Amino acid sequence: MICTQILPAQTAQMLKKMNQILLISHKKPDGDTLGSAFALLYALRSLGKTVRIACSDGFPRRYAFFYPNFAAEAQPEFEPDFVVTVDMADSQLLGIQNECWADRIDLCIDHHPSNTRYARYLLLETQTSSTTAIVAKVLDEMGVPIQGLIGDALYTGLITDTGCFRYANTNADALRLGARLLDAGVDGFSIQKRLLETKSRGLLQLERIALDSLEYAFDERFAMIEVSLDARAKTGVLEEEMEGISQIPRQIEGVQAAATFKQIEPEAYRISLRTDATINASEVCKKFGGGGHPRAAGCVMHGDIQQLKAQLLEVIRPYFL
Amino acid sequence: MICTQILPAQTAQMLKKMNQILLISHKKPDGDTLGSAFALLYALRSLGKTVRIACSDGFPRRYAFFYPNFAAEAQPEFEPDFVVTVDMADSQLLGIQNECWADRIDLCIDHHPSNTRYARYLLLETQTSSTTAIVAKVLDEMGVPIQGLIGDALYTGLITDTGCFRYANTNADALRLGARLLDAGVDGFSIQKRLLETKSRGLLQLERIALDSLEYAFDERFAMIEVSLDARAKTGVLEEEMEGISQIPRQIEGVQAAATFKQIEPEAYRISLRTDATINASEVCKKFGGGGHPRAAGCVMHGDIQQLKAQLLEVIRPYFL
Repeated sequence: MICTQILPAQTAQMLKKMNQILLISHKKPDGDTLGSAFALLYALRSLGKTVRIACSDGFPRRYAFFYPNFAAEAQPEFEPDFVVTVDMADSQLLGIQNECWADRIDLCIDHHPSNTRYARYLLLETQTSSTTAIVAKVLDEMGVPIQGLIGDALYTGLITDTGCFRYANTNADALRLGARLLDAGVDGFSIQKRLLETKSRGLLQLERIALDSLEYAFDERFAMIEVSLDARAKTGVLEEEMEGISQIPRQIEGVQAAATFKQIEPEAYRISLRTDATINASEVCKKFGGGGHPRAAGCVMHGDIQQLKAQLLEVIRPYFL
Repeated sequence: MICTQILPAQTAQMLKKMNQILLISHKKPDGDTLGSAFALLYALRSLGKTVRIACSDGFPRRYAFFYPNFAAEAQPEFEPDFVVTVDMADSQLLGIQNECWADRIDLCIDHHPSNTRYARYLLLETQTSSTTAIVAKVLDEMGVPIQGLIGDALYTGLITDTGCFRYANTNADALRLGARLLDAGVDGFSIQKRLLETKSRGLLQLERIALDSLEYAFDERFAMIEVSLDARAKTGVLEEEMEGISQIPRQIEGVQAAATFKQIEPEAYRISLRTDATINASEVCKKFGGGGHPRAAGCVMHGDIQQLKAQLLEVIRPYFL
């Protein structure tokens, strides 16, 4: 299939012509994919479209403040004339529930450089901090005012993908969109406190356990930390709460890259890799079948933790020579 | 003495008329007081003024990236015709080295609601996130371009006082100034990583020790954490590195206020109090001779730690009834 890259204005025109639209967020949804989908949902409905939203892993309570009255099962049923994925770099991320659409994606709105161009039309801006920031441009082109829950949804993607303007992908446009959303009435502080600052007592305990596993390599320029199923069971922490743990090792002075090994099955780990400008995290993770951004990427590895750490060290070693 | 409140334009006019200007940062300097002073220093020198900068506790290496060639002792000596304090709520914060100027402060530029109006002229904007953001307005009024080290200095105050746009004082203007500074070439990511994200291994260890002291009160809505001299000696952490520790207890779910007790002498503690909108931190700290902002304030208390905790609990108790 040929993938045609388009701009926000063309995207807006295209969406305006469609009537029955299915929006799909990636599996294991985060603030950016859900924020993008819901902002589009509200915008398209305000234009009179029939719209449904789908996510293979459901709609976490964590983000429900921007979909307070949403009930997935109460959505309209229809045969879509247009299928849109948001923030989804690869059709593999459709997840089990939605993989049936894999060959029928009409439009993908995304900002991942690793996008595999699986959609008929692609609105890809790899320099834009969050997919919600691209969606904001589309809404502007559609003439939909940015306010209310749309603002909350857009702000959520913006701050979850930039760590509330802390990550390297934070640029002037990200800050300007943030300012505009605050002007539009978004309670930015409450959203960021809720999503990024609040830790359960269990999470605090889990972080302490994880810290005990901290290991260094390559003259302490590489750090690894581990979260076992055992520790999660002991502290009762949900996976969606754990994003912050990958931030711990990368904050250590002198550390240029850091990996977090989250055990997901007895013999399987989800690895998050965070790097500075000298190391391409996406490239490293690709070697293990994963992907992501140059400075933040991930993959899943199977086997014994010590072996996996050794494998990762082998692949990342050249960067430290 | 009568304190006359003035606006940025008047401030700029006033500064332009002066020739020998002394700028004073508050003792125990932070990014905002130093950023404000150095931005003004560079701006006023570019206008041909003779300017000196003073700080009772010197100029930490931590912030030297925006004063790379600065040597306090190599500054011009002169009898100032205008004495300016920046980000200084009270003349008590002049510190031992500069208290000689206490009755001679011509202008204070500040954003603390607790400002005691000790200066002849006062440019006070309590709704502005950082004093550097007020200084930026003054520079605009003076026609001095915001670039280079001036940009770095202004950005530093902006992000240290807002926790890189995370604290409740972050408003649209703060984000807009951030965007403008990034556009002007400031490497925001490097500055925030250096100042807010980077932890020494010692600090990580100190945080773990501090976590062991975590205590709750009032149905776990109030949290207290302690950093002893002993723990600091063991980990070799400098006081200026420790700002982040006060963030730990306030992040805990359900915690509305959190106090960090930093031991500064065997029988003396510096308390940082962080609160949500329901509790006025500045009011509480005032009862112990301290002050600050409504949601972030501090004081020094003398005595045994258990007694001090009991005293603080007593004063803050009414807020939890």
